Amino acid sequence: MSDLPADLRAHADQLCRQARPAARLVAVAPDALRQRALLAAADELARRGDAIRAANVRDLDQARADGLAPAMVDRLRLDGTRLDAVIADLRAVAALPDPVGRVLETFAIAKGVRAEKVAVPIGVVACIFESRPNVTVDVAALCLRSGNACILRGGKEAVHSNRALAEGFRAGIAAAGLPADAVQLVQDQDRRLVEALLVREDAIDLVIPRGGEGLIRAVVAVSKVPVVKHDKGVCSVYVHAAADPAMALAIIANAKVQRPGVCNAIENMLVDAAIAPSFLPRLPAALPGVELRACARALPLLPGAVAAVEADWEAEYLALILAVKVVDGLDEAIRFTNRHGSHHSDAIVSADPAAAARYLAEVDSACVYHNASTRFTDGGQFGFGAEVGISTNRIHARGPMGLRELCTYKFVCRGEGQVRG
Amino acid sequence: MSDLPADLRAHADQLCRQARPAARLVAVAPDALRQRALLAAADELARRGDAIRAANVRDLDQARADGLAPAMVDRLRLDGTRLDAVIADLRAVAALPDPVGRVLETFAIAKGVRAEKVAVPIGVVACIFESRPNVTVDVAALCLRSGNACILRGGKEAVHSNRALAEGFRAGIAAAGLPADAVQLVQDQDRRLVEALLVREDAIDLVIPRGGEGLIRAVVAVSKVPVVKHDKGVCSVYVHAAADPAMALAIIANAKVQRPGVCNAIENMLVDAAIAPSFLPRLPAALPGVELRACARALPLLPGAVAAVEADWEAEYLALILAVKVVDGLDEAIRFTNRHGSHHSDAIVSADPAAAARYLAEVDSACVYHNASTRFTDGGQFGFGAEVGISTNRIHARGPMGLRELCTYKFVCRGEGQVRG
Repeated sequence: MSDLPADLRAHADQLCRQARPAARLVAVAPDALRQRALLAAADELARRGDAIRAANVRDLDQARADGLAPAMVDRLRLDGTRLDAVIADLRAVAALPDPVGRVLETFAIAKGVRAEKVAVPIGVVACIFESRPNVTVDVAALCLRSGNACILRGGKEAVHSNRALAEGFRAGIAAAGLPADAVQLVQDQDRRLVEALLVREDAIDLVIPRGGEGLIRAVVAVSKVPVVKHDKGVCSVYVHAAADPAMALAIIANAKVQRPGVCNAIENMLVDAAIAPSFLPRLPAALPGVELRACARALPLLPGAVAAVEADWEAEYLALILAVKVVDGLDEAIRFTNRHGSHHSDAIVSADPAAAARYLAEVDSACVYHNASTRFTDGGQFGFGAEVGISTNRIHARGPMGLRELCTYKFVCRGEGQVRG
Repeated sequence: MSDLPADLRAHADQLCRQARPAARLVAVAPDALRQRALLAAADELARRGDAIRAANVRDLDQARADGLAPAMVDRLRLDGTRLDAVIADLRAVAALPDPVGRVLETFAIAKGVRAEKVAVPIGVVACIFESRPNVTVDVAALCLRSGNACILRGGKEAVHSNRALAEGFRAGIAAAGLPADAVQLVQDQDRRLVEALLVREDAIDLVIPRGGEGLIRAVVAVSKVPVVKHDKGVCSVYVHAAADPAMALAIIANAKVQRPGVCNAIENMLVDAAIAPSFLPRLPAALPGVELRACARALPLLPGAVAAVEADWEAEYLALILAVKVVDGLDEAIRFTNRHGSHHSDAIVSADPAAAARYLAEVDSACVYHNASTRFTDGGQFGFGAEVGISTNRIHARGPMGLRELCTYKFVCRGEGQVRG
């Protein structure tokens, strides 16, 4: 840290210094005020639509000049329709039930002191994310709705878009009477600034990295602030001997093809040896355009497939590729999934309730499915209304992370003068 | 890490390699088997009583030879009475309700897929602690009861005691049919070995440092594994203008004097200026033997007190010393407590429900009390049966950390072939 230039250090200090007082105000703000502030932010973003789109055009021009892939340029784009969607999502977050102040538990402690376990905001949340500018508004809205202040650091490709969005958001919430500094955007893209923030466990309570594996690894490597990772998904479907083949094919097709570039899509499938000879030959027709990489036992049963190598069992393709393996029953399927998967989302297809029960209990993943697609692992599908993302942490938040997972708790204890004996 | 000697690296690798398979077996072991294993461990420790006490005598002799303070030597001591208590605690943990498999929530996700949020073990938990050997058995028992495997690293002063206890514990659970490696003790006290473990986020899911500030800082500085800290307590009592003075004195005396060396004892007290002239002169008689360090406004009202300096407001004395400050009402009390306290346990004494409600809502501590002593912050007092300690983390577990806080959750989702639209 000692080689951090003075101006970067000053920026990091300022972000940290401003965050805590803002967090305290937002944490105790009444629900109606937090809601009003989000609606005011939505109005302000709508009012600034032309300026925001102009800022986005600067980012798009730069991206093209830098030779970014068309898919990346498209992710950056914030045209009128997409901006409207961002604003609509913001209003939707304002309408979600307040996660703060929920009484999670009531119990008596010693000597008749009464305790309530109450949901409270975490405090100051830092979020580090990549290209898509809508994340700026999504995360700011979720943090504010849950009574947290946030420090946001977006990708360098979206720097102008993110600034325009954050400025509008800040102006909106300030107009409603909440501190603008409840939402702060890191203004310099120097990576050392992020490192300077990640050692400030005095000022930042949680950091959420959202993005590729490189970003996550870099954050975990330097952070002294607790991290909730949004890491990769190597998900699978296991076709058990007692599976309905048509159901299995439909689930595999959905989980592989519907949107292959997301973390809850599957990267591999397992099938029991007992049914492999009848099941596997039907697979190619169910997965048109999908490259199949097969283990030695599956290969002869899959016309057009290529031979899988060891690395295929742990690869996150995010593409129309599926690794296929024949296993000798439930034990091997569970062992294989726990060993090679990323503990994100895994499914068994089976008509045998006992086999399903063992799979659901023993596969150690955030979301385990019986006779359903892994694609349901999503805050929207789960009814959370909105999500920060899919946590791959084991502690605090696991799987879809919504407003409630942006809260912690405190024990509120009421007595009549009791002391400990 | 590159300078780690080969034998230490081999030991770290072995601990990590053995932990995960053991964790998987313990996680899916039926409740009755985990209970039986704990009872078998208790029996085995009782059977090995002489050997354990002999090992402890070696540690005590070494401690005296090293010139350890008598209080430290006493903390190390594991005589017959204390060993009986350790074994009784172990049996008590076996009798606690199973925290694993609790259905925390049931809800419908999209398309009628049914989801349950179910408590599951975290996996592999590392615990790093200091002198008292009973912690070895306490933490091993709590981890096993909650379906986790653990890697324990105790203080060097207790090395022989810890080995004897861990060996007995392992033999007991192995006799009952659970893998001995569900409880592993780090066999070398070299600090670099701990560092080698703390970068193994692939093998260890959570690390719990229990001990002094130096230990906690050292762990946070190097760990890539998520940390739940058991850090210091700078706790306070605020005597509001509407306080019953006798109740306030009783609570302050209890919170300061009953056991000053623990984290939930108070280190400072605040009193409203309006009642300071009548309240403070009564304080010395209520706190015989306590050194009072007073702010400039309190000093003239406290015969025998010394002047406090700025550092007193954040000091964890763990001794019969109390810092005393006069404040101008609720706002200053809340601000002061949030700024100088350690967010552990804080209390207001007041007959005014509105003032109490604001204090309870706005003081950002794990446990906030109205008209009760901070000394209630304790797993036993909270009815948790047993505790790992008092977490000073903000996420995952806050305040007393028991069996349930040694669990995470998974989503178990059941369908009839649903796919995402």
